[in-house]
Amino acid sequence: MLPDKDCILDHVAIAVSDLEKSIKIYEDLGLTFAAEREVVESQAVTTAFAAIDENAHIELLCPYGEDGPIHKYIAKKGEGIHHLCFKVPDVEKKAKELRDKGYVLLYDKASMGAGNCLVNFIHPKSTGGVLIEISQKL
Amino acid sequence: MLPDKDCILDHVAIAVSDLEKSIKIYEDLGLTFAAEREVVESQAVTTAFAAIDENAHIELLCPYGEDGPIHKYIAKKGEGIHHLCFKVPDVEKKAKELRDKGYVLLYDKASMGAGNCLVNFIHPKSTGGVLIEISQKL
Repeated sequence: MLPDKDCILDHVAIAVSDLEKSIKIYEDLGLTFAAEREVVESQAVTTAFAAIDENAHIELLCPYGEDGPIHKYIAKKGEGIHHLCFKVPDVEKKAKELRDKGYVLLYDKASMGAGNCLVNFIHPKSTGGVLIEISQKL
Repeated sequence: MLPDKDCILDHVAIAVSDLEKSIKIYEDLGLTFAAEREVVESQAVTTAFAAIDENAHIELLCPYGEDGPIHKYIAKKGEGIHHLCFKVPDVEKKAKELRDKGYVLLYDKASMGAGNCLVNFIHPKSTGGVLIEISQKL
């Protein structure tokens, strides 16, 4: 079974409250993290990445301060898997296709995410409880 | 960044309450499902698979009847991502390594899972809220 080239897993994002402790957990499992830690100011998180397949990686999201969606997520639901992100060729085209089928997107327009990507999100109420990011590499 | 060959994502398992409805959602996203539906009697679920990368797939888990862990999971928490599964070369060796480091495994011994694999699970209390399956292809 080959993956559809127009919809490939980019990352599994996990909300964590202690970045270095969680990195250690996934290293104990067998993963290897890149040395860089990327700060995403719009989400008020520090991130760490480990490859988990040819294209996909785990992205740990650790909030700093007490603002931002990931801090609120952890306060409400605890640590855990936050969203899945799929790479698509054209995020606005895919968002339109999905809206035309009745899906609710979080944003009217895609916005710049980390790693020079245009991103939007499908609301978990539209997907059976899973927050799904769609992402186009620029 | 290349994946560690000794720890590669095998699947993302998602608990769903209506299998065909959820298949349609992920098909609308852009995934393609295999025609087969596998029944896993030990979990009282019917499953459907779609590739999401070279090695990894999405596994939808839909309970039948009112017994089984996935039915209970959905009744308690609602639909959503249930666990991540990583392929390892030797599941008993990895389980021992993890226990020696203080991780709690769900089972004393690995058991046969779907697709001729030996599997065990790391308790989410040990991992920061994520149920992680480790799986060895026989």
